[in-house]
Amino acid sequence: MLVLVVNGPNLNLLGRREPGHYGLATLGEIELRAKALGLDLGLEVEFFQSNSEGALVDAVQSAAGRAAAIVINPAAYTHTSVALRDAIAAVGLPAVEVHLSNIHAREDFRHTSLTAPACRGVIAGFGAEGYLLALRAVAALLAS
Amino acid sequence: MLVLVVNGPNLNLLGRREPGHYGLATLGEIELRAKALGLDLGLEVEFFQSNSEGALVDAVQSAAGRAAAIVINPAAYTHTSVALRDAIAAVGLPAVEVHLSNIHAREDFRHTSLTAPACRGVIAGFGAEGYLLALRAVAALLAS
Amino acid sequence: MLVLVVNGPNLNLLGRREPGHYGLATLGEIELRAKALGLDLGLEVEFFQSNSEGALVDAVQSAAGRAAAIVINPAAYTHTSVALRDAIAAVGLPAVEVHLSNIHAREDFRHTSLTAPACRGVIAGFGAEGYLLALRAVAALLAS
Amino acid sequence: MLVLVVNGPNLNLLGRREPGHYGLATLGEIELRAKALGLDLGLEVEFFQSNSEGALVDAVQSAAGRAAAIVINPAAYTHTSVALRDAIAAVGLPAVEVHLSNIHAREDFRHTSLTAPACRGVIAGFGAEGYLLALRAVAALLAS
Amino acid sequence: MLVLVVNGPNLNLLGRREPGHYGLATLGEIELRAKALGLDLGLEVEFFQSNSEGALVDAVQSAAGRAAAIVINPAAYTHTSVALRDAIAAVGLPAVEVHLSNIHAREDFRHTSLTAPACRGVIAGFGAEGYLLALRAVAALLAS
Amino acid sequence: MLVLVVNGPNLNLLGRREPGHYGLATLGEIELRAKALGLDLGLEVEFFQSNSEGALVDAVQSAAGRAAAIVINPAAYTHTSVALRDAIAAVGLPAVEVHLSNIHAREDFRHTSLTAPACRGVIAGFGAEGYLLALRAVAALLAS
Amino acid sequence: MLVLVVNGPNLNLLGRREPGHYGLATLGEIELRAKALGLDLGLEVEFFQSNSEGALVDAVQSAAGRAAAIVINPAAYTHTSVALRDAIAAVGLPAVEVHLSNIHAREDFRHTSLTAPACRGVIAGFGAEGYLLALRAVAALLAS
Amino acid sequence: MLVLVVNGPNLNLLGRREPGHYGLATLGEIELRAKALGLDLGLEVEFFQSNSEGALVDAVQSAAGRAAAIVINPAAYTHTSVALRDAIAAVGLPAVEVHLSNIHAREDFRHTSLTAPACRGVIAGFGAEGYLLALRAVAALLAS
Amino acid sequence: MLVLVVNGPNLNLLGRREPGHYGLATLGEIELRAKALGLDLGLEVEFFQSNSEGALVDAVQSAAGRAAAIVINPAAYTHTSVALRDAIAAVGLPAVEVHLSNIHAREDFRHTSLTAPACRGVIAGFGAEGYLLALRAVAALLAS
Amino acid sequence: MLVLVVNGPNLNLLGRREPGHYGLATLGEIELRAKALGLDLGLEVEFFQSNSEGALVDAVQSAAGRAAAIVINPAAYTHTSVALRDAIAAVGLPAVEVHLSNIHAREDFRHTSLTAPACRGVIAGFGAEGYLLALRAVAALLAS
Amino acid sequence: MLVLVVNGPNLNLLGRREPGHYGLATLGEIELRAKALGLDLGLEVEFFQSNSEGALVDAVQSAAGRAAAIVINPAAYTHTSVALRDAIAAVGLPAVEVHLSNIHAREDFRHTSLTAPACRGVIAGFGAEGYLLALRAVAALLAS
Amino acid sequence: MLVLVVNGPNLNLLGRREPGHYGLATLGEIELRAKALGLDLGLEVEFFQSNSEGALVDAVQSAAGRAAAIVINPAAYTHTSVALRDAIAAVGLPAVEVHLSNIHAREDFRHTSLTAPACRGVIAGFGAEGYLLALRAVAALLAS
Repeated sequence: MLVLVVNGPNLNLLGRREPGHYGLATLGEIELRAKALGLDLGLEVEFFQSNSEGALVDAVQSAAGRAAAIVINPAAYTHTSVALRDAIAAVGLPAVEVHLSNIHAREDFRHTSLTAPACRGVIAGFGAEGYLLALRAVAALLAS
Repeated sequence: MLVLVVNGPNLNLLGRREPGHYGLATLGEIELRAKALGLDLGLEVEFFQSNSEGALVDAVQSAAGRAAAIVINPAAYTHTSVALRDAIAAVGLPAVEVHLSNIHAREDFRHTSLTAPACRGVIAGFGAEGYLLALRAVAALLAS
Repeated sequence: MLVLVVNGPNLNLLGRREPGHYGLATLGEIELRAKALGLDLGLEVEFFQSNSEGALVDAVQSAAGRAAAIVINPAAYTHTSVALRDAIAAVGLPAVEVHLSNIHAREDFRHTSLTAPACRGVIAGFGAEGYLLALRAVAALLAS
Repeated sequence: MLVLVVNGPNLNLLGRREPGHYGLATLGEIELRAKALGLDLGLEVEFFQSNSEGALVDAVQSAAGRAAAIVINPAAYTHTSVALRDAIAAVGLPAVEVHLSNIHAREDFRHTSLTAPACRGVIAGFGAEGYLLALRAVAALLAS
Repeated sequence: MLVLVVNGPNLNLLGRREPGHYGLATLGEIELRAKALGLDLGLEVEFFQSNSEGALVDAVQSAAGRAAAIVINPAAYTHTSVALRDAIAAVGLPAVEVHLSNIHAREDFRHTSLTAPACRGVIAGFGAEGYLLALRAVAALLAS
Repeated sequence: MLVLVVNGPNLNLLGRREPGHYGLATLGEIELRAKALGLDLGLEVEFFQSNSEGALVDAVQSAAGRAAAIVINPAAYTHTSVALRDAIAAVGLPAVEVHLSNIHAREDFRHTSLTAPACRGVIAGFGAEGYLLALRAVAALLAS
Repeated sequence: MLVLVVNGPNLNLLGRREPGHYGLATLGEIELRAKALGLDLGLEVEFFQSNSEGALVDAVQSAAGRAAAIVINPAAYTHTSVALRDAIAAVGLPAVEVHLSNIHAREDFRHTSLTAPACRGVIAGFGAEGYLLALRAVAALLAS
Repeated sequence: MLVLVVNGPNLNLLGRREPGHYGLATLGEIELRAKALGLDLGLEVEFFQSNSEGALVDAVQSAAGRAAAIVINPAAYTHTSVALRDAIAAVGLPAVEVHLSNIHAREDFRHTSLTAPACRGVIAGFGAEGYLLALRAVAALLAS
Repeated sequence: MLVLVVNGPNLNLLGRREPGHYGLATLGEIELRAKALGLDLGLEVEFFQSNSEGALVDAVQSAAGRAAAIVINPAAYTHTSVALRDAIAAVGLPAVEVHLSNIHAREDFRHTSLTAPACRGVIAGFGAEGYLLALRAVAALLAS
Repeated sequence: MLVLVVNGPNLNLLGRREPGHYGLATLGEIELRAKALGLDLGLEVEFFQSNSEGALVDAVQSAAGRAAAIVINPAAYTHTSVALRDAIAAVGLPAVEVHLSNIHAREDFRHTSLTAPACRGVIAGFGAEGYLLALRAVAALLAS
Repeated sequence: MLVLVVNGPNLNLLGRREPGHYGLATLGEIELRAKALGLDLGLEVEFFQSNSEGALVDAVQSAAGRAAAIVINPAAYTHTSVALRDAIAAVGLPAVEVHLSNIHAREDFRHTSLTAPACRGVIAGFGAEGYLLALRAVAALLAS
Repeated sequence: MLVLVVNGPNLNLLGRREPGHYGLATLGEIELRAKALGLDLGLEVEFFQSNSEGALVDAVQSAAGRAAAIVINPAAYTHTSVALRDAIAAVGLPAVEVHLSNIHAREDFRHTSLTAPACRGVIAGFGAEGYLLALRAVAALLAS
C-alpha cells in the first residue's frame, strides 16, 4: 500500500526558510519520520518535491494505478492552481491536504484553498507533525 | 493533563443527522474512542456539547487554569462567532479546531472560519477520526 | 399532528415594539388565532419563543419524533444563524419560514436569509396573518 | 372586488416544464382553483400571462381603477425588471408576490427580488398552493 | 434614574485577558468606578454581563419600564448580532455603545458595528475610562 | 430636422404616478411644450412611448435615415437594458439621455446607466424641463 | 429535422451596424448560408429575429415538439435575460449559443452569459461563420 | 438674482487641456457666454475657479445669503469630495451639477458622483453648452 | 498642557446647517464650553477650523512640540483623507476623534473612518457634548 | 499551412478522467480525427500536450514563423495563466480557444477566461467535436 | 532643462516622522542630493512641497511651459486625488511617480495609485534614493 | 558581489513582441547594458530567463549563498505567483522588482503584484532603462 507524498514549491528549503513560520525540520527529516510511521501503519511512503506546477501535476497523475492514497502539501500552489485540483480529482484516489502553518491565521489570500475541495480532508498548522497526522488519516481512510 | 473537547450546535444529533455528511458514529461513541486514545497518550479527555454560543464561550473560559489544551468543533458557529474566537484567544491555551466534514468542499459560507485564526491548527474532513487526530496533535503540541 | 411554531428574539415584545413595523397584535394573541385555525385544519399548534439562538436550536431539535412540521420565525437570527439552518436541516421535517414584515423592503442585511434554504417556503410581509398562512401551507404540505 | 393575477415568462408551460421544480399543475388548473377560492373569499379573480416584460407592465398598469389588489408571479423578471417594480409602485394597489419554488434555495441570482420591495409581501416555495395563500393574504389585506 | 450597563462575551475576563488590548482593570473595578461616578451624576448604575447573546437580549429588554438609559459594550456581538440591535431599537431607550479598544484600528471585521445604528452614539478606544465617558454622555442625553 | 423622443416604461402614467418624484405634468403636456420649443429651434419633434423594451429598440432603430437626433428617457430600462444601449450605438445618431428625477439621489441601482455611454450626454433631475433642455442640447449638437 | 435559429435584438441591423465589430454580412445572407449548409447536413433551418425579449421567449417555446435543436444568438439579452435562460431550459432541446464577436474581449458586462448554462455549448468570435459552426455542432449533437 | 458658478480643479486649463475631451473654449470664453445668457434670463452670473477643495467649499458657503442658486462643475472632486457635498447640502440653495464630458462613458471611477445627490440635477456631456443649459435649468427652478 | 481641537470642513456653519443633524450650537459656543471645561481639567484648549484639507494637515503638524494632545473632528475628510491620517500618525500625539452625529447610522460611506486608526479612540453621536467628552478622554489619557 | 494544437494540464488523461464531464475519447483519438479533417481542409495539424505552464508558453512561442494558426485548450490554465495570454498575444497568430465542457455551466471560477481575450474566438461544450469545429474556424479565418 | 519635483502632504516632516518607515533624511537633505545629481545629469532641479491638494495641482500646472519633466511623490494623495491625476495628464509632461516606502507591502488602501496611470513610470521602496533614481529615469526619458 | 537578474515568461521575445508596449531592445541587449553598468557599480550581473514558474522559483532559490541581491521581472507571474513571492521571501536577499511597462496604466489585473510585498521596492514603466535603475537601487541598498 503505497502513499505518495507530494510537496510543492519552496518546501525543499524547509529548516532554513523562515523557521518561525515553518519550523526547523528539513524535508528529509520529515520524510524519515513519515517513513518510520508508515512502517507502523503498514504503508509504504514515497516523497516527491518540485517547485514546478507541471511536475507536481505529473506526480499526482503518476499515482494512478500504483498508489493507494495521496498526501499533498501544495504550498503556494494551494491558492492558485486549478491544474493541481483537476489532477487530484482526475486520479480519483483519496487525498489529504497538509499545511505546515495555520493558513487561516496568515494573509487573506492564503485563506482560500483551490485544491482542498478535491481532497478528503485538510490538516493545517501542526508543522512537521501534520505529515504524520495525514498518514494516520490515510490509514483510517483506507481501513474504512 | 486535561484536554477539554468542546462541541458546538447540532453535534448532539450525530449519528442520526444527515449520516452521508457526518457519519454514523454518535457523539457518545466518539467520546469513548477519544477517551481510550487519551489513555494511551497520557491525556485526560472531557467532552462538552451545547447548542448555545454563550454556553460554549463559558466552557472555553472554564478551561483556563484546569486544562492544558482545547479541542473544539464549533460546528455552525465556526462561520459566525467572533465571541468564540475571542474566548479561545483570551484563555490562551493551545487549541485545535476539528470539523467532521471537509468544509472547503461545501457551501461558500462554510469556507471561512472565524475561529481558526485563534487556534493552532485545523483538522477537517475525516469524520470521527478527526477527533483522534486532534488529540494526537494536542499531544505533540504539549510535548514540543 | 403537531406543528411546532418557533419564534426568535424580540418577538416576545410584539404589540409593544415598533407597531408601525410589526403591528399591534401580541405573540399571545397570534398564538390564540393560530390555535383556533389549527383546530379547523386538524393541526395541534404549540408555540415557543426565546431570545437565545441555542434555545431555539434546542426547540427545533425537540420537534423530531413528536411534531409533523415546523413553522419558524427566526427574526434577527434569519440573517446570522447557520446553527438554526443546520438544525432545521437535521430534523428533516417540513418547515415554513414566516416574517411579519416584508424583509425585502428593509435594510440590505435583512434581504438575505440563511435559514430559508433549509425550509420548504417563506411567507413574509403579512404581519400576524402570516402565521395563519403558514399553517395553511403546512396543512397543504402534509396533505400532499 | 377584482384581484388581478399577473403571471410572468414561461409560466404558460407549467405542468410540462421541469415538474420536479414547478409541480404538475398547469396554469389553467391553478386559475380554476384560484377562482373557486375567490368565490369563497368574495374576490373576483382574473388571470393574465405573458412572456413579455412590456405586456406585463401594461397589465399591472391596467389594474388601476378596476382592481382592488394584484397578485404577481414575475417569474424570471423578478430578478431583472425595474420596470415591473416601478409599475407596481405606480399603480399603488396592494400587491402580493408569489413564487412556485423556494427561490432562496436555488441559484444565487434568484435570491434577489427587484419587485418585492414594491409589494406588501412575498410567498415562495409552496407550488400552486402559493396562489391560494396569496389570495387569502389579499383578502386579509383588504379587510384590514 | 437607573442606567443599565450591559456587557457582552468575554468581558468577565477583563484584567486577565490580553491586557495589552484591554487594560488591567477587572469588570468589577470598572463597575465600582462607574457607580461612584453615577452617584455624582445622580444616576443609579447596574451592571450585567453574560456570554450569551440571548441573555443579553433578555437584559436589554428588561430595561424597559425601569431604566432611563442603556450603556452597552456588546463586545464580539457588536459585529454579528442583529438580535441585540433589534432589542435596543425595540426598548426605545437612549443607548450608548462602548468599546474598550479602538475597533477601527483592529481587524477589518471589527470595523463594522451592527448595533451602533440603534444607539445614540459610540465611544471607543479609551479602555475602562470609556464607561465613565458613556455615563457622562447618558447624563447629558437625559438632561437635554 | 426630426428629433425622435423615445420614452420608456411607466412614463405613460406621468402626472398620476408618484407626483412627488415625477411632477404633475402628463407626457402629453410635455410633448406639447417640446413641440413648441422645437418650432423655435427649427426642430420637428416626434414622441414615442412604450412599456416594452423590444418596441423601444424598434423605435430607436426606426430613427435611422429619417431623424437627425434622438432624445431618450429609458426610465427603468436605463439600469437593465443592454439592448437599448446597443440600439443607440447601432443607429449612430447623436442621442441625449433625459431623466425626470435626479437618479443619483435615489436607490443605489438607479445610479448606474447602461445606456448613457452610448449617448452624447445626460440631463437628470429637472422634471419636464429636462426634455426642453435636451432639445436645446440637441440643437447645439446639430449646430456644431 | 428542424433547427430553429433564434436571433436577438439589433441583429436585424447586421451588415450596417458597426461592421468592424460585427462584419459585413446581413442576417439574410447568413440565413442563406445556414440553409445551404443545412441541406448538406440534413437539417431544415428556420430563422427568427426579434428585438423583444418576450417574442424571443415565445419563439424558443415554439420549438418544443417541432424542432430537434435550437441555435440562439441572444445578443444583448445574453447578459440580462433570465427569462430566455428559463425558456431554453424549459423546452429541453439541445441548444447552441452563438456570438458574432468574442464577448470575452469586450466590455466587462459582456463577459457573463446568463443563457449559456442552459445551452450545451457556446461559439463566439467567428462572425457569420459562427452560425455554420453551430449547425455543425448541432449535427454532431443529434448524431451522438 | 445671483447665480454662483463654481469650477473645480484643472478647469483653469480649459482650451489647452486635452481638447478632444474638453473642447477648445477657455473658461473665460464660457464665462462670457454664460453672462450673456444670464442677461437674457434675468440672472446675474458670477464665476469662481480653484484647484483647492477647501477654497471651493468656502466659495459654496459664500453663496448663502447672497446668491439664489449654484451651478457647480466639481471636476475631479466630483468623485472624491464629501466636503463639497456637505457644503452644497449645508447652504441649502438649489444647485445644478455640470460636467463637460459624458462621465458615464469614461473610466469607471468617474461614473460615481458624490456631489450629485446634494444637487437638484446633473447635466453632462455637452461641453461648454452644458453651462448654458445649467443656467436655463436654474431659471426654470427659480421660476417654479 | 495644550489641547489642539481641529475642526474640518463645514463645521464653521454649525448652528445654521441642518440643525436636525448637527444641533443648534455654533462652533463658537462649543469652543466656549470646551474652554470652560478645560479650566476644570487643567487643560488649555485651542480651536482651529478650516475647510481645506491641506490647512488641517498643517494644523495637525503644528501641534508637534507645543500641544499635549489633539482632538479632531475631521468631518467630511474622515472618509476620504489619507493625508490627515498620516499627519496624525506623524505627530505622534494622542488624538481623539469626535463626530457630532452617529456616523454609523447615516449613509454607508460615512461608516468608514480613514483617520480613526491613527487616533486613540472615537466619540460619535453626542452633538456638542462630544467635544467635552473628548476633553475628558484626553485628560484621562494624559493622566495614565 | 500548419496549425498547432496546444493542450493543457490533465488532457493527457482524457478518456480515463471523469468521462461524464469530458467524454470517452482519448487525446490520441482526437488527434487522429483532427488530422483527418485537416487533410480535408488543407491544414497540417500538430498536437502538443503538457502539464507545465512554462512548456505550454514555450510551445505557443514555437508557433511563430512556422505555424499559420493556433488552436489551444488551456484547460485549468484558462483561469489562472496570464503567461499563456501574453504568449498568445506575443506570437500574433490567429488563435482559437477550445473547451471540452461548457465552462459556463460549471463552478464559478471556470466562468472566467484569462486567455480568451487574446484569441479570436472560443468554442466550448462540444467535447472532442470542439477540436474539429475549431479547425473549421481556423480554415475560415485563414481564408478570409 | 528644468525638472520640477513635487512633494505631497507630510513630506515636510521627513526625518522626524516614523523613521522606520521613511528613513532619517530630511526633505532638505534629499533636495541637496537631488540637485547635486541634477548637475551631473544636466538637469536643473526645483523642489516644491505642500500639504494642500490644490496647491499641488497648482504646482503641477505651473510646470507647463517652463519644465521639461515632473517628478512627483504624491504621498497620501496618491490614493485619493483624481485632481492630481488630471493635472498631470493635462500638462502633458513626462512624469515619474516616487514613493519612499514600498506601497505594495503596506495597508491595502495604499496598493492603489490613482496618479500612476498619468505618469510614465513608478519607483517605490528605496527611500531617499528613489528621488535620485527618478532623476536618472527622467534623464533617460528626455534623451530618448 | 553577484546580482542575479531573473526574467519571467515571454521576456525572451523582447524586441519582437508588441514593441509599442515593450520597446525594441532584446533581452540580450539589455543584459549587455546591465553588465556594463554593473562593472561601473562593482556588481557582477547574471541574467536568467524562463517561461516556467518552477524554473524561476529554482533560480531565485539558487541565489542563496552566492548572490548579494536579486533583480526580478516576474512578467505575467507578477500577478499570479504566490510561489515566486514565497521564494523571494525564503532566500531573504534584498530584491528589486522591475517592469518594462507601467503596470498601473494597463488592464486591471495587472495593477496588483503578488511578488512586490516580498521585494524592497518596485520600478515600473521605464522600459529597458528600468533594469539599469534597478541595478543602481541594488547598489544603494548594498551600500546602506
